[in-house]
Amino acid sequence: SAAQSPPIRLYPLSSYTFSVKEPQLEEDDSVKKRLERLETHYHAHGMRRTCEGVLLCHEHNHPHVLMLQIANAFFKLPGDYIPPDADEMSGFKARLDERLAPTGSLSNSPANAGWNVHSALAQWWRPNFETFMYPYLPPHVSRPKECKKLYLVELPKTKVIACPKNMKLIAVPLFELYDNTGRYGPQLSAIPHLLSRYRWEFV
Amino acid sequence: SAAQSPPIRLYPLSSYTFSVKEPQLEEDDSVKKRLERLETHYHAHGMRRTCEGVLLCHEHNHPHVLMLQIANAFFKLPGDYIPPDADEMSGFKARLDERLAPTGSLSNSPANAGWNVHSALAQWWRPNFETFMYPYLPPHVSRPKECKKLYLVELPKTKVIACPKNMKLIAVPLFELYDNTGRYGPQLSAIPHLLSRYRWEFV
Ligand SMILES: [Zn+2]
Ligand SMILES: [Zn+2]
Ligand SMILES: [Zn+2]
Ligand SMILES: [Zn+2]
Repeated sequence: SAAQSPPIRLYPLSSYTFSVKEPQLEEDDSVKKRLERLETHYHAHGMRRTCEGVLLCHEHNHPHVLMLQIANAFFKLPGDYIPPDADEMSGFKARLDERLAPTGSLSNSPANAGWNVHSALAQWWRPNFETFMYPYLPPHVSRPKECKKLYLVELPKTKVIACPKNMKLIAVPLFELYDNTGRYGPQLSAIPHLLSRYRWEFV
Repeated sequence: SAAQSPPIRLYPLSSYTFSVKEPQLEEDDSVKKRLERLETHYHAHGMRRTCEGVLLCHEHNHPHVLMLQIANAFFKLPGDYIPPDADEMSGFKARLDERLAPTGSLSNSPANAGWNVHSALAQWWRPNFETFMYPYLPPHVSRPKECKKLYLVELPKTKVIACPKNMKLIAVPLFELYDNTGRYGPQLSAIPHLLSRYRWEFV
């Protein structure tokens, strides 16, 4: 079991087709409001579950992470919180569809069948109704308010990916994320660590 | 395959017996000499392979990493480079024995049978004969000089662990390592990220 798993195939960015769809506005217009909504959610449903996907391609045989950039400012991975009553994995795939699946005629292409979730990469815990999250449950925290899971999502050889009009889909190389908490924050800048155990096959 | 693997059992630090053995001095007395030896090794045998183990216990239901502290200054994981002609996994276990297995009568206890290497956590690449290592192979580097792999090593319920006299064996909590590159360096401070995908069972 200590043996490394088989390599994961990465395709060039150019093998994907990008389209644009309706804008998707933030549910909250401030951090304060987002944390208030989290607290309301917690009192009604318990800990929030969030799932995000690390989707990879390559350029120059170096892995790149697909990210959404909002308002030319902050970056995020595709994914979101899962409805309290939903199964985690199907809820996650529905969130990926919501964010990235093409609408209209493009949505029926056979290349666009679903998401292949490969493996869990990380869990981040939010102990309080505050912005801080940790990649472990801090000691003596028995009632975390949110758990965010990152999953590696394997992309097929071709796919149509739609990006909401108010966001930009960008491919960020691992060497740009690494040691760059200032620009990408603690979660995104840790992705190179999380991926370092894999072997890649650059097609 | 995206499902999380079963939880890993962690035992309290107090369930292990610590003993002391002969000192193990550094092979090189400066970074410069170490890098020169790496270059000599490279020209004779190609890329150096190094394996290190992340051995865990718990205190207060929070994972702690066993580390060696040398001269009250720097920290390292048990493990070392693997001889060029050795099989990686058996070479790694021999290195763990060399560093941590008790000598003399204690070495025959049944609780001390070998090492259970659970899974690969990370790989670090050294592109040049320099101190910098990266958790990915940087673009256009085709001949890395060293690859260091980190493995999660599952500890049994009890074990005798011997520490060379010139080192100190310490258990460092994840919350102390996290975001603490200043004290622990980029490799050790990333361990909380690497472990965040696991679930623990604190016994
Ligand atoms: Zn409240
Ligand atoms: Zn290039
Ligand atoms: Zn040379
Ligand atoms: Zn305590």
